[in-house]
Amino acid sequence: MLNYEQALATVLSNTAHAMSEECVALEQSLGRVLSRPIVADRPLPPFNRVAMDGLAFKHSDFNPTLPLEIKNEVLAGMEVNNSLAPNQAFHIMTGAALPASADTVVQIEHFELQSGELPQALLQSGRDYSCGLNIHPVGADAAKGEELVSASSCVTPAQMGVMAAVGSSEVWVKRKPVVNIFSTGDELVAPEDIPTAVQIRDSNSYVLMSFCQRSGANAKRLGTLKDDLSYLRQHLGQGLAGDILLLSGGVSAGTHDYIPQVLEELGVTQVFHKVAIKPGKPLWFGVSDSGVLVFGLPGNPVSTQVNFNLFVRPVIHQMVGLGLENGDEPKTLRLPISLDWVKRSPRPDQFINGKITASEQGMVVLPIHDHGSGDFCSFAKADALIRLSGDRGTTYSAGSLVEVIRM
Amino acid sequence: MLNYEQALATVLSNTAHAMSEECVALEQSLGRVLSRPIVADRPLPPFNRVAMDGLAFKHSDFNPTLPLEIKNEVLAGMEVNNSLAPNQAFHIMTGAALPASADTVVQIEHFELQSGELPQALLQSGRDYSCGLNIHPVGADAAKGEELVSASSCVTPAQMGVMAAVGSSEVWVKRKPVVNIFSTGDELVAPEDIPTAVQIRDSNSYVLMSFCQRSGANAKRLGTLKDDLSYLRQHLGQGLAGDILLLSGGVSAGTHDYIPQVLEELGVTQVFHKVAIKPGKPLWFGVSDSGVLVFGLPGNPVSTQVNFNLFVRPVIHQMVGLGLENGDEPKTLRLPISLDWVKRSPRPDQFINGKITASEQGMVVLPIHDHGSGDFCSFAKADALIRLSGDRGTTYSAGSLVEVIRM
Repeated sequence: MLNYEQALATVLSNTAHAMSEECVALEQSLGRVLSRPIVADRPLPPFNRVAMDGLAFKHSDFNPTLPLEIKNEVLAGMEVNNSLAPNQAFHIMTGAALPASADTVVQIEHFELQSGELPQALLQSGRDYSCGLNIHPVGADAAKGEELVSASSCVTPAQMGVMAAVGSSEVWVKRKPVVNIFSTGDELVAPEDIPTAVQIRDSNSYVLMSFCQRSGANAKRLGTLKDDLSYLRQHLGQGLAGDILLLSGGVSAGTHDYIPQVLEELGVTQVFHKVAIKPGKPLWFGVSDSGVLVFGLPGNPVSTQVNFNLFVRPVIHQMVGLGLENGDEPKTLRLPISLDWVKRSPRPDQFINGKITASEQGMVVLPIHDHGSGDFCSFAKADALIRLSGDRGTTYSAGSLVEVIRM
Repeated sequence: MLNYEQALATVLSNTAHAMSEECVALEQSLGRVLSRPIVADRPLPPFNRVAMDGLAFKHSDFNPTLPLEIKNEVLAGMEVNNSLAPNQAFHIMTGAALPASADTVVQIEHFELQSGELPQALLQSGRDYSCGLNIHPVGADAAKGEELVSASSCVTPAQMGVMAAVGSSEVWVKRKPVVNIFSTGDELVAPEDIPTAVQIRDSNSYVLMSFCQRSGANAKRLGTLKDDLSYLRQHLGQGLAGDILLLSGGVSAGTHDYIPQVLEELGVTQVFHKVAIKPGKPLWFGVSDSGVLVFGLPGNPVSTQVNFNLFVRPVIHQMVGLGLENGDEPKTLRLPISLDWVKRSPRPDQFINGKITASEQGMVVLPIHDHGSGDFCSFAKADALIRLSGDRGTTYSAGSLVEVIRM
């Protein structure tokens, strides 16, 4: 049986399918993964930008013992080409382009205004008026052509601002992988239905849809499949019209688990079945003739969610190339565990519920008690998985670093 | 001038405006803030749930030295009422409801099947068959009526699963605050336009829209306002048709900053102007007659983003009651700073760009160098603000804990 690292590497090495790109409006790009870098169409700032409301003058012509005479007002967006005589100045506003005839700006509050008003102003003694003051020089932040946001970035609000500033009103992004989702099981009814004493409501398709959306995929719930061979033959194929197919339930050792058989008929080749982890051991993984990745996830809600976070999300991220060109290798997150904890499972890797919290010593992860692997109420309090490795009985003492996978 | 804590407290104490609730479909609830708790409509699990494909029998009637005779098959969703004689068993599947005549399940792999097949199976010697094995008992996770997800939770994928399981096909959530956004400034053109040598493209309205969306608000970009009194009188009022109005630019000491005047004419009372922070000092805050919160943010893109994260996001969260009933007071996040850093600003609080990263020692925050407060390219590399307090020249040595505000 494959272990966690082997299974993850196997899944990722079968992801031949890199997403193509599409063009979206700037406003729609938040959270999308760029397929091309964003470069500066002109230097940033594009001109010597005034950083303070004040008086602009030429430093070499300035005599601080004489009042400045205000020649004219320069607002942001105003182009001014006139020259300044010695001890003349512009009254200039934040965001304006500094006229070529000036090189220094001193804020208006640092002057004594003659008769309380412009146009005569004397610099207060002791005030700084060094050359270049309060100017954000052209090109200081970026040269024309410089890369500002790298391809493979997941667009943040601040990056959207940079894109707007350089005229990227439309941007090229990776197409979102289409993930089709089926729940399986005769015991399932819809959330709006009243289950009988032996039925439960479908919850996994909602959870998987949400996790897919959060991971940057386009998730489609296709409904609930019956544990019936001819029904499956009729319906399962539509799940392959996408990039990834997620099935929850139907892949364990039950006599009525027909799904692997029907998948094989549909041209899906099994790559592995079962991983030596707890929970989530029954995971089934296969690839279709056309490269669709098929995950047969356990019906148990906790196992399904653990498998999604361990295996499916990394695949979605790989398909869109998230972070691949940012230079920094994705690092394993390690945090101090906030309680003593003993590994109870004999499987090589156990994943328990964790909650990342702020403490006086920084970020820590709190393990959350549950009532076994079916307890999705406790699981819903978690925002991370804590990986416990080693033999059954291995003790993790409070404060020691553990590997954490954020959900 | 107010300091950071005073300004934040002032803003929050003026937020009288708690959002009303609305009902949305379960599928639409991801990331929304619940206005009512989710309670279990029946115990969880709702029946004695079988956790393993196996044979189910009554422990007190079982003789492990004799083969079990398989009476019938019990699938998930199947209701079975027949009784078992001693050493009879059901072949039962994961997820099925355990019939009342059985109390123990042993997985199928732990039996020797007579002639390789059911219906005769002998337990392998040494296998555990303790009473109650592989049963997830009715009510183990939650009693009927128990609160499963508290009001004021921001719905996660796992919580959506819990909601589906208990039949919350529609859920009550807080209405999203409507945030209207204007950029101001005659120097601004749209991202799709080619600016002249002294113009720049509007980026702040895109950044603010995105930050609002990420904070759970319904953001509306209303366009760019001209620095012109009659124009402002004609257009500014439409910004008050919401819960919050954000203006970027037009609130500094420039002679053409008419916005405070027009806001006053529209019934907006100034609460404060300027905060002793760097960047973001020129912040203007007021409240309209009808309780709309108005933020006059500086035009400088970095200052605007810092102000949003320090003051506007907490207001949006307070309006929807995010986390207020979860019992845990929002804790200040403190992380080790990964480099020596010296506070350069004399203002009581300086906020510098940071990036939260994984290190061998856990999570740390890396300060990011910039080219002054106009450098939104460097800012776009940050995902957090690092708060530096104390006198100019205060040194923060690598590894010491600093206050971090995530963006």
